[in-house]
Amino acid sequence: MRSTMMEIPLSLNHLLERAGTLFVGGRIVSRLPDKSLREHSYGQWHRRTLALAAALQELGLRKGERVATLSWNHHAHLECYFGVPAAGGVLHTLNLRLAPEELGWIAADAQDRFLVVDDVLLPLYRQFAHLHKFERVIVFPFTGAPVPDEFSDYEQLLAGADGEGFVALPHEETDPVAMCYTSGTTGRPKGVVYSHRSTVLHTLIGCLGDHWGLKSTDVVLPVTPMFHANCWGLPYAAVMLGVTMVFPGPHLHPVDLLDLMQLEPPTLALGVPTIWMSLIQTFDAAQTGEPGRWKLPAGMRSLVGGAAVPEALIRAFDRHGVWLLQGWGMTETSPLATVSYPRAELRDAGIDERYRRAALAGVPAPLVEVRIRTDEGSDAPWDGVTMGEIQVRGPFITREYHEVPVAEDKFTPDGWLRTGDVATMDALGFVRITDRTKDLIKSGGEWISSVDLENALMAHPALAEAAVIALPDEKWGERPLACLVFKPGQQADAAALGAHLLAQGFAKWQLPDRYEVIDAVPRTSTGKFWKLKLRERFAR
Amino acid sequence: MRSTMMEIPLSLNHLLERAGTLFVGGRIVSRLPDKSLREHSYGQWHRRTLALAAALQELGLRKGERVATLSWNHHAHLECYFGVPAAGGVLHTLNLRLAPEELGWIAADAQDRFLVVDDVLLPLYRQFAHLHKFERVIVFPFTGAPVPDEFSDYEQLLAGADGEGFVALPHEETDPVAMCYTSGTTGRPKGVVYSHRSTVLHTLIGCLGDHWGLKSTDVVLPVTPMFHANCWGLPYAAVMLGVTMVFPGPHLHPVDLLDLMQLEPPTLALGVPTIWMSLIQTFDAAQTGEPGRWKLPAGMRSLVGGAAVPEALIRAFDRHGVWLLQGWGMTETSPLATVSYPRAELRDAGIDERYRRAALAGVPAPLVEVRIRTDEGSDAPWDGVTMGEIQVRGPFITREYHEVPVAEDKFTPDGWLRTGDVATMDALGFVRITDRTKDLIKSGGEWISSVDLENALMAHPALAEAAVIALPDEKWGERPLACLVFKPGQQADAAALGAHLLAQGFAKWQLPDRYEVIDAVPRTSTGKFWKLKLRERFAR
Repeated sequence: MRSTMMEIPLSLNHLLERAGTLFVGGRIVSRLPDKSLREHSYGQWHRRTLALAAALQELGLRKGERVATLSWNHHAHLECYFGVPAAGGVLHTLNLRLAPEELGWIAADAQDRFLVVDDVLLPLYRQFAHLHKFERVIVFPFTGAPVPDEFSDYEQLLAGADGEGFVALPHEETDPVAMCYTSGTTGRPKGVVYSHRSTVLHTLIGCLGDHWGLKSTDVVLPVTPMFHANCWGLPYAAVMLGVTMVFPGPHLHPVDLLDLMQLEPPTLALGVPTIWMSLIQTFDAAQTGEPGRWKLPAGMRSLVGGAAVPEALIRAFDRHGVWLLQGWGMTETSPLATVSYPRAELRDAGIDERYRRAALAGVPAPLVEVRIRTDEGSDAPWDGVTMGEIQVRGPFITREYHEVPVAEDKFTPDGWLRTGDVATMDALGFVRITDRTKDLIKSGGEWISSVDLENALMAHPALAEAAVIALPDEKWGERPLACLVFKPGQQADAAALGAHLLAQGFAKWQLPDRYEVIDAVPRTSTGKFWKLKLRERFAR
Repeated sequence: MRSTMMEIPLSLNHLLERAGTLFVGGRIVSRLPDKSLREHSYGQWHRRTLALAAALQELGLRKGERVATLSWNHHAHLECYFGVPAAGGVLHTLNLRLAPEELGWIAADAQDRFLVVDDVLLPLYRQFAHLHKFERVIVFPFTGAPVPDEFSDYEQLLAGADGEGFVALPHEETDPVAMCYTSGTTGRPKGVVYSHRSTVLHTLIGCLGDHWGLKSTDVVLPVTPMFHANCWGLPYAAVMLGVTMVFPGPHLHPVDLLDLMQLEPPTLALGVPTIWMSLIQTFDAAQTGEPGRWKLPAGMRSLVGGAAVPEALIRAFDRHGVWLLQGWGMTETSPLATVSYPRAELRDAGIDERYRRAALAGVPAPLVEVRIRTDEGSDAPWDGVTMGEIQVRGPFITREYHEVPVAEDKFTPDGWLRTGDVATMDALGFVRITDRTKDLIKSGGEWISSVDLENALMAHPALAEAAVIALPDEKWGERPLACLVFKPGQQADAAALGAHLLAQGFAKWQLPDRYEVIDAVPRTSTGKFWKLKLRERFAR
């Protein structure tokens, strides 16, 4: 016997067409570089998106080819989210916080054919333009200023395209739609490629009541950059349900965000803990100094992720009636893998217990299988104590990296993704992350690879060894500290080492905050750097 | 370029395993025939479901074979919902409201191998046992009384099975999991076969915030029978999220339901308008007579479907703070196709406008494409006036019927399901059902085929012609009225015609309430019965 159900592929094009018919009156608000607000209806957005798709096809974009973006959060970026896949292309969001060298390397690795770039980000583009030749650079005139002649003008491109005549090509649901690079601990960043199927499934899982609980009446403020793991998937969900979107553009300072919240009060705001921490500190300070300048929108809820969310942050927001919902995941997991929601069993738990759980990584989402694998290769019991590596499996989890041979340190032989995070799981299925197998440093929601820093430092002629560890930091979450072993009779100061690292392609914010001279790097029995010992010594 | 995402099939087994690990403490409450309550934890339910799956495999169930159920709503039926697919079988829910002859025909058509039947429904089973030979009849001792020797005992079967050792076989996501028969206007009922894929996708769509908005803290009371289109999909959603389920068993009288709501207050209750109408009338009457006997649970929401929901019913519940959410669909659509939720655009609309919209069939759900096809074969504009047939398309819509050649009156050449409902669509995408192309009568949520009644009546020797129409009925929604044209010199009274219909296999509740003698059946220009004229004459 066989099922009688239709064989209809999951498709972003369906969500796009849906918005273009059902939600024509819906609102998309973008903050421009001059801080003014620009509003588009979903109807306008739909027409512009089809025009973009038609334009890309007219430029000769072929199925599966990459179109990169170097953009802040705004309506045109949302047009790329849907217009590039509609044209059969793959949206490749470039992380504007990376060093120019890294951006150039990533664009070359992805073989990006076209680039859409905000005019305000042209200076950054020019720093890596020599590293990868885009066939065409399309400039979005975010400021409204004329686009330099050597580039294509995004608005002129749309105006000249036949969006009404555009018809999306048929596709398989496993065809690619988007690509994002993940920072590796060893070697180069690696590309993750999402499909129609993985994206639609992730969208539906994100929308569940215990997760985002999105409704058509919601107003979503994504502070999370759209170049970070699909902005956690919210743009797709918003278009599926026709919710109002408020994009902050380049203005992510707490004062700007609080101002924006007064103009367009969100019901759901999402961002990384670092920004949320600044935001609540700024808000609380203003309550004392200038009461009444700002209000936190009544009934607003918030989704925080990208790094561990301190319990203190959850308490700080809850004092103002805003509950922080924490999600855990990574570029490889689309990203939502676990969500720390108030489970039914916690209904009668005291508030302290609810805060404690809220500060954990959370419970596996439906369709995502999570196991905690101990060093002995068995699954850890759900006792909240036994540690192991988090391994995940599911239809929106990556099984390999773009054009990189599958490696054992990334995927298990039985097909699970090795996340590199070490965790415990308790009886209610709450994952608590205790460590990382690789020693990445997460600063302001951005990864810094300690291994990359170490390798670069050790390339300095004066240094014998270097080990970089993460130190907890109130503002940034974590900051790097470098432990240095000089060659006999050699030395170098912080300024010299910083210059050395900048010359090797690191961004300024990636440089260590502190340098400590040690006699030798402690090692484990198998000869690996034993960073735990260094952390114990310096992390006070 | 190809996607790097894992190829993991959507699977009910994943939901089952998820509940068995994450929700072991969750609650499943069933009302027994003696009206007492029986509670199982999700952990117990999970073990019992695996035992059922193991037992079915030990009985030799092969992949794709059908296991029928003839059951009320209770925990054991939920075990069948997941245990049969886990064993590789297809759950075939038999509608206990059908006439025995029809049940026998359906079981034979589906080639059901095994039957799970409630002990209280054995009398019904015995009426059609001669029409289809089940290889094994497994009796669920719902009353607790001993199971007659000629049958297998469900509880003994589970007790003797090795559930812990059970391992589900690998499957494709398009493999079948469940089957349900739809009433046809012409000829026999037809089987719809759902897959893992269609069921999981439908579950995720149902859970959206504007639809069921299910959370782990919900308590769901499904009054909708589990033999009706998968109980609208709620059982799958409940297991996915670990929500508390309260099953009413055979006790669907308003007094029983109100009593049950006091014992286990639901946050979400679902049922057909007929039952909901009785319930609110009973409740309102008691408020006058015996105030305080019952309360409607605070904050309860309700999902109503299966037939048009009158605005008066929505208003009646809203007076007590319960908002009725209406869904429209059919067995062929899994069933959820449209939902009448309060869209963002209606936020500032007056309450009358909100009631009016709530009484419409609603807005297409994501993944479901809806078009209103006019008689001329074009898509009707979204003007709220132009009528046409609703046609639907999507990954949980049927493309054919089980072992029935695809017919043009059921599916369009370009692959859309023809629903047989006539409707308009307004500018906000709200579907309003105005008529049916086929003249089915919906009584108490159950279909009565007017064409079948007509054919049976016209087989009576005294009758020349008969046309059956639906009359609006406060209690049942609709009831059949038969318009009769006698042969010259002949006649028959209501009692004789009723006996004639019963002899032809109709159930008692399917018989017309009224008989009217007319001179001739009015006909359209193409010679079809023009029932509109009869409705205008009699529907006062």
